[in-house]
Amino acid sequence: MPATPSAARRSERARAAILAAATELIRELPYAKLSVEAIAARAGVGKQTIYRWWPSKGAVVFDAMLELDSGPEGLALPDTGDIAADLRALLRGSVAALTDPGFESFLRALYIEIQQDPEIGAAYRERLLLPERAAIADRLAAGVRSGELRQDLDLELATDLLLGPIQSRWSLGLGGLTESYADAALDAALAFLRA
Amino acid sequence: MPATPSAARRSERARAAILAAATELIRELPYAKLSVEAIAARAGVGKQTIYRWWPSKGAVVFDAMLELDSGPEGLALPDTGDIAADLRALLRGSVAALTDPGFESFLRALYIEIQQDPEIGAAYRERLLLPERAAIADRLAAGVRSGELRQDLDLELATDLLLGPIQSRWSLGLGGLTESYADAALDAALAFLRA
Repeated sequence: MPATPSAARRSERARAAILAAATELIRELPYAKLSVEAIAARAGVGKQTIYRWWPSKGAVVFDAMLELDSGPEGLALPDTGDIAADLRALLRGSVAALTDPGFESFLRALYIEIQQDPEIGAAYRERLLLPERAAIADRLAAGVRSGELRQDLDLELATDLLLGPIQSRWSLGLGGLTESYADAALDAALAFLRA
Repeated sequence: MPATPSAARRSERARAAILAAATELIRELPYAKLSVEAIAARAGVGKQTIYRWWPSKGAVVFDAMLELDSGPEGLALPDTGDIAADLRALLRGSVAALTDPGFESFLRALYIEIQQDPEIGAAYRERLLLPERAAIADRLAAGVRSGELRQDLDLELATDLLLGPIQSRWSLGLGGLTESYADAALDAALAFLRA
């Protein structure tokens, strides 16, 4: 039955072309102008090919974003034994990602979909956000064990305090996201984490 | 020239009907399904009447939101002389607003538009967000003057630290926004504000 593997290869090529087209277009167009038609045209497939695998443009964009993701093994935070240094790298990295023009357009698109599509919101939290937060909580827990952080630390609240200021400035378009802002936000959070 | 005031009254009635229709529909429909056509039908006007005054559905929604706004005199925070009590009321009020079903659908719509429409983002910051943040900064500055807060407090960062955790949990759909979360987030921020 040689037809089956060959059909599978064709499907896999089409799927890769669609995700690559979405990744390109999201950097070129305002999200409201990005359509399933435009993705299909760029990928050289019919619109129905996209709808066979994805229910909406948001679902395509989410899968394209997952392709960029380094996977769970890439999430663990380094543990140098210096919690402030490790969290500083985390917050600076967060600022760098949020202000990278190519990645930012992806994140804004995802933000729109989280607000309007409960299924994409749930998939985002399950596949990306909660694993990231768990990796941060693991590093914070090690800081509690080593005595660098307060013994009664609420890891969930601590994660919010570390990331919330940067994340909310970004999502509200307030600007000012620099490395020195990241460092100041870290020092502010550490006042509580270490208290 | 009696036609002019009467035409102005008709315009004013149509404008009010359009904003009321948008306010109703935003609570009834997912935002992606809300269209200028639907607003026009509910308001009993033609689509062109809406486009004469607003460039997009997002612009209508933003003006409808401004109608709900209490104006700049409603923004000042109470100053009871107890900064923790006054900020507690602020954070609890923020949680209450973000979890109010009617108001939340408005805010999610606004969030979508901020990500995709730079003009609405700029208008939101200028008309709503920055005045609110200035009112908070004023109350924090009074706390610095009274000696309740640290003398070198960065008011901008302090505002981010107070509101960022709640705001980011809400916008990422993480849930858990209760009064006791608001109180815990306040205590965490105060560790820095008072240090």
